[in-house]
Amino acid sequence: MAEQTGRPHSGYAEHIGYDLTRRETGFAEVTLVVGPQHLNRSNIPHGGLLATLLDTALGYAGCWCGVPGHHRSAVTLSLTTSFTGQVRSGLLRATGRKGPSGTRIYTCTGEVLDPHGAVLAMAQGVFRYRSGSERPEGVPRHKG
Amino acid sequence: MAEQTGRPHSGYAEHIGYDLTRRETGFAEVTLVVGPQHLNRSNIPHGGLLATLLDTALGYAGCWCGVPGHHRSAVTLSLTTSFTGQVRSGLLRATGRKGPSGTRIYTCTGEVLDPHGAVLAMAQGVFRYRSGSERPEGVPRHKG
Amino acid sequence: MAEQTGRPHSGYAEHIGYDLTRRETGFAEVTLVVGPQHLNRSNIPHGGLLATLLDTALGYAGCWCGVPGHHRSAVTLSLTTSFTGQVRSGLLRATGRKGPSGTRIYTCTGEVLDPHGAVLAMAQGVFRYRSGSERPEGVPRHKG
Amino acid sequence: MAEQTGRPHSGYAEHIGYDLTRRETGFAEVTLVVGPQHLNRSNIPHGGLLATLLDTALGYAGCWCGVPGHHRSAVTLSLTTSFTGQVRSGLLRATGRKGPSGTRIYTCTGEVLDPHGAVLAMAQGVFRYRSGSERPEGVPRHKG
Repeated sequence: MAEQTGRPHSGYAEHIGYDLTRRETGFAEVTLVVGPQHLNRSNIPHGGLLATLLDTALGYAGCWCGVPGHHRSAVTLSLTTSFTGQVRSGLLRATGRKGPSGTRIYTCTGEVLDPHGAVLAMAQGVFRYRSGSERPEGVPRHKG
Repeated sequence: MAEQTGRPHSGYAEHIGYDLTRRETGFAEVTLVVGPQHLNRSNIPHGGLLATLLDTALGYAGCWCGVPGHHRSAVTLSLTTSFTGQVRSGLLRATGRKGPSGTRIYTCTGEVLDPHGAVLAMAQGVFRYRSGSERPEGVPRHKG
Repeated sequence: MAEQTGRPHSGYAEHIGYDLTRRETGFAEVTLVVGPQHLNRSNIPHGGLLATLLDTALGYAGCWCGVPGHHRSAVTLSLTTSFTGQVRSGLLRATGRKGPSGTRIYTCTGEVLDPHGAVLAMAQGVFRYRSGSERPEGVPRHKG
Repeated sequence: MAEQTGRPHSGYAEHIGYDLTRRETGFAEVTLVVGPQHLNRSNIPHGGLLATLLDTALGYAGCWCGVPGHHRSAVTLSLTTSFTGQVRSGLLRATGRKGPSGTRIYTCTGEVLDPHGAVLAMAQGVFRYRSGSERPEGVPRHKG
């Protein structure tokens, strides 16, 4: 399963610096250590950063694939984020859980916790599997 | 007004690379040139990036302040982003417009356009002015 | 076009008392005269009533069908409603406009206006056409 | 506690027919037996009905007041409802739970379950206490 956690292979994940630290059926966790490059003018993490972690965790929560060499992917249709706390530093932990879902459309909810366990933001989203990914066995990964 | 546009003075604005390119009463525009550091695994701008531009544009739309040396700030209470298109490169333009509002709470809507004018994402948000910022004259900027 | 406006043929439309008063491609208007049966404990229209008018107007906005005897229908995937004003009586007018859309999934935005034109609530939603309704010509109506 | 459950004293609660069946700190449950007056043109409960039950349950979840003769009230700022299932009849049960909150602004999440426990809709909302209601002891009820 090692291939399914770690830094996602995308320019944005690399640039923002978040890691996918836990995945299982219907669940994903994304973590990030807050640095000065994540802060807004009020010196707290930018709302867009928290939305980024949530979009990532919620999207991944529905895309677990147990078949070696295969993966699943989805697009976000709509994401609602409510902001409920503030912190200046430390490790942020975003979790996403898959909720009631149809074949192609799925819902997820989740939250971002600060190092003390306080909720910084919470989200509810609706996602759509890309073609082929609605099946648990997913599709073969592209070779590079 | 020059001081009110340009790169916002925040680590996140610097890191992501967006600029505040237009501001007036109840309106703000944020632009960004897409680079490889903004792309997700499907090689399109990450949803979190679009949410970042929208959160920024919508928040600023309610915070115009015409008094020299003063400013206004707000926190996002809730932001809903719907994703409606995809593009791989070019200049993205996010706009925010203030909607019906109370004294301390305001609403905004907006969208992100690709270089061809197609809508990549749209948002509706609820914001709360920080203390003092509910007045059009805002509060004096902190000296550095 | 007469068949496409008026009281929708549903128990809920009848019970709540709203009418579909205008329809065209990508647009719908729903109206309701506020009565005591629509008020919450604070004697203003219940938020659920405003959400009802918006869900209806936004859903219809994407379902215009110009073929006689045919219709189109959709399901709401997600609806975000922000509440921005209060009124005690009079005619409420909810409008919905179709936004950027794919083949099966469409977005809509809209608002509820009070008799003086003030915005009581605004909404952004994501909808999915029922099978067959993604085509502009829709499907034949069921005979009763 | 009897005074805090039962049919809420509002025209809309009476008209729609829902009851407040359970309340405690940070939690509320609203139930409704589906009848033909609740159905849309597809003969399933109208999305506006489910939004009504959720707006009610979520709003109440933050308004528990343990002081006899006192109460607390709030206004909805924003409510996002995602629709995830369908049922034609039976008892619907909407629950709301208070989430992370400030002094005047609070969040809630909740869902509507059909008689078999399937989730028909889920919601996330942001609410603001009316003046005085931010205190747990609330305000004295108005005499009629």
